[in-house]
Amino acid sequence: MLSWRFMRDVNVGIVGLGNVGSGSLTILTANSGEIARKLGFRLNVRGLCSRTIRTKSLPAGVGEVFTTTDWFELVTHPDIDIVAELVGGTTVAHQVVDEAIRHGKSVVTANKELMADCGLEIWSAASQAGVHLAFEASVCGGIPIHHVLRDGIAADRIQTLFGILNGTCNYILTEIERRQAKFDDVLREAQALGYAEADPTADVEGYDARSKLALLATLAFGQRTRVADIYTEGIRRISPEDFEYAAQLGYTIRLLCGARRSADGIRVSVRPALIPKDAILASVHGGYNAVWVRGAHGQDTFYYGKGAGPEPTGVAVVSDMMRLARDVRERRCQLSSPFAYQTLEPARILPIEDERKPWFLRFRVKDRPGIIAALATTLAEWAVSVDAVLQLPAKDKQNLPFVITVEAAPEHAIRAAVRKMGDYDFMADAPLALPMETGV
Amino acid sequence: MLSWRFMRDVNVGIVGLGNVGSGSLTILTANSGEIARKLGFRLNVRGLCSRTIRTKSLPAGVGEVFTTTDWFELVTHPDIDIVAELVGGTTVAHQVVDEAIRHGKSVVTANKELMADCGLEIWSAASQAGVHLAFEASVCGGIPIHHVLRDGIAADRIQTLFGILNGTCNYILTEIERRQAKFDDVLREAQALGYAEADPTADVEGYDARSKLALLATLAFGQRTRVADIYTEGIRRISPEDFEYAAQLGYTIRLLCGARRSADGIRVSVRPALIPKDAILASVHGGYNAVWVRGAHGQDTFYYGKGAGPEPTGVAVVSDMMRLARDVRERRCQLSSPFAYQTLEPARILPIEDERKPWFLRFRVKDRPGIIAALATTLAEWAVSVDAVLQLPAKDKQNLPFVITVEAAPEHAIRAAVRKMGDYDFMADAPLALPMETGV
Repeated sequence: MLSWRFMRDVNVGIVGLGNVGSGSLTILTANSGEIARKLGFRLNVRGLCSRTIRTKSLPAGVGEVFTTTDWFELVTHPDIDIVAELVGGTTVAHQVVDEAIRHGKSVVTANKELMADCGLEIWSAASQAGVHLAFEASVCGGIPIHHVLRDGIAADRIQTLFGILNGTCNYILTEIERRQAKFDDVLREAQALGYAEADPTADVEGYDARSKLALLATLAFGQRTRVADIYTEGIRRISPEDFEYAAQLGYTIRLLCGARRSADGIRVSVRPALIPKDAILASVHGGYNAVWVRGAHGQDTFYYGKGAGPEPTGVAVVSDMMRLARDVRERRCQLSSPFAYQTLEPARILPIEDERKPWFLRFRVKDRPGIIAALATTLAEWAVSVDAVLQLPAKDKQNLPFVITVEAAPEHAIRAAVRKMGDYDFMADAPLALPMETGV
Repeated sequence: MLSWRFMRDVNVGIVGLGNVGSGSLTILTANSGEIARKLGFRLNVRGLCSRTIRTKSLPAGVGEVFTTTDWFELVTHPDIDIVAELVGGTTVAHQVVDEAIRHGKSVVTANKELMADCGLEIWSAASQAGVHLAFEASVCGGIPIHHVLRDGIAADRIQTLFGILNGTCNYILTEIERRQAKFDDVLREAQALGYAEADPTADVEGYDARSKLALLATLAFGQRTRVADIYTEGIRRISPEDFEYAAQLGYTIRLLCGARRSADGIRVSVRPALIPKDAILASVHGGYNAVWVRGAHGQDTFYYGKGAGPEPTGVAVVSDMMRLARDVRERRCQLSSPFAYQTLEPARILPIEDERKPWFLRFRVKDRPGIIAALATTLAEWAVSVDAVLQLPAKDKQNLPFVITVEAAPEHAIRAAVRKMGDYDFMADAPLALPMETGV
């Protein structure tokens, strides 16, 4: 059984030496001894490609490595077994992955957009070419959630998955909460500190989290979930008052990514939501990510770690390389699906509007008598029962915030009621409706 | 690349149909469709062995299965590829595992004592026989911590691991905290509810947690850690007052399993300790387990779930079966080490007495003047600096609890000082010294 000792080492090539590429290279170099002791053979960095390779200083101990500015040279190099695509974006990255597969290389990628958009086609091409594909690093940087869903709890039947998948939004929300700061101010600071992009749209509108949720839902349920299937709402409208009112109710607010399976199909959403302060997801602060899973058999499990950063994400990339290196070396004939299921079904997406849950409705009004009565009447028209009315002390009577919580009601009723309420002349701002997720 | 389609299904046999065996069988039966869709082939239950098999009612849909009261018949049956040893204990269980391996079967086990005591020898026998070995279910029931350490974050270099690994102790401690109940009362209730054994020694003295920590430290550091290496202290002496004083300081108390690596070796301990209330480990209540890992590259990650229970532990057993079934089917020639490292080093165990940390010292005294002065003088003799003295209102002046916290000091100094302080005639009870783990 010791024949493996005589097999050769495995060589990797990295395309893209930005944050994640550099972090991966650091780990491959600094931790090469431990990696070899875990694998029983060496994982060598053989090639590096970057447009600015000439300006990069490579880490000491990287060994005999060729460098190039031409990704095609790297992905076609005969010595390379595994290509890491760490370019980002969906144009060049897609070409890199396609050509690597066409040339018989296994592929590791950290690219969530590419995998959410074209992952199944890429996996199909890899499968036909007999090469392996892995993308742990595409979701939740340092949390090995792909490994968990694909292997660790593979025997379970997952019912519900909730995630905090965008570190920028979580940082902004927890800063608003911690020091009653305004969204715009915290965003500006986050940009200055490098925690948010100059154009923050992808983060604060929930698009980044949506790509990640599409991948996690696909892995959790074996139904191919696309970004277009996911109801998405950003965090721009969340204010310090919302946290104050939520705290009164024993809740906090997070950008919550949810995927729920029922017998008929799945419901997927990315939106700010109230979650109980004593829920374990509520303990996720700052730039951390987390995933909470409920299985039919294993009940609740929870996974938490750094959502981004060169080395946490690098751990995901290099751990994928290690797993694939074992497979490459053994020339496995059954390729293990990176989507957890060998065959994916099309997603049966159910409308979230039918789901019943309690809601938190925040208003800003020009104060005058009869407002509560008008709003309560409107809610009653859609058969929605008021649970509580909360009003904290406030000075500006022309822009007075207050909150109504309502008992469990379907979202379509809430939306219809809120649309009508938005037309009242006493509204200083459009009402904000946030679901209260009591089950997390 | 589709040759695998023509390979046969994989057959499993289960020895032992207690809690974990029944839970595993439920999952294999109820979730067989999902499992097949994930694997791309079927995982069949082929044989079941239990001393009381005639009295068991098997789940519907279990299929064509033979039953026996003779484990030797099962482990030698030619149709069976993977044997699950779910007997528990270390005598029959050891024979089952040895004979299964000798007969060319791969083995899944949930047996922490067996694996902590003899795991390396068993793995060596499996390796020579060319069969696979897995024991995810031996630690933290529903949390896939083996998968995480072995694969998910394999590329990282783990520095520190803290765990809450015994659900019974965690239930007892959080109940003492929640309702200021006494240890003995909560233990009795836990026994009545079935949360604690009639003989609770293995749980409350920390021996169960110790076996689990021995396995996790081995996986985390690649150094073979034995139960005898681990400093172990139980929870019998923890009282409601300890939680009250800890809360005053912003801390709570848990039975904390710790493993730390430095350049010279590792330090391992199981003991009640103070942890900050805002640490994520402090949010672990009741029968849940959790593991917090700090890596040199991936930084902090955290894993949480049910520590026990038939189906959560069954998820671990069956997920292991699925992974091994892929390997069995492919006749892999390199067997992947169940200990994360292909080669283990002997553990270089460092004495925990040298570690410097702040301490919480709780006394019960017969009140009289000069007590604080005497204790402070004793601490000064060992160069230990007092941080704070806390005394909550109390009635019984013959049994007055109070607390001194001290600045970071090596444990050997604390132990020597506490030994001397225990001899003072004003002590109503031996002093209790708990470390304050500020880094979790």
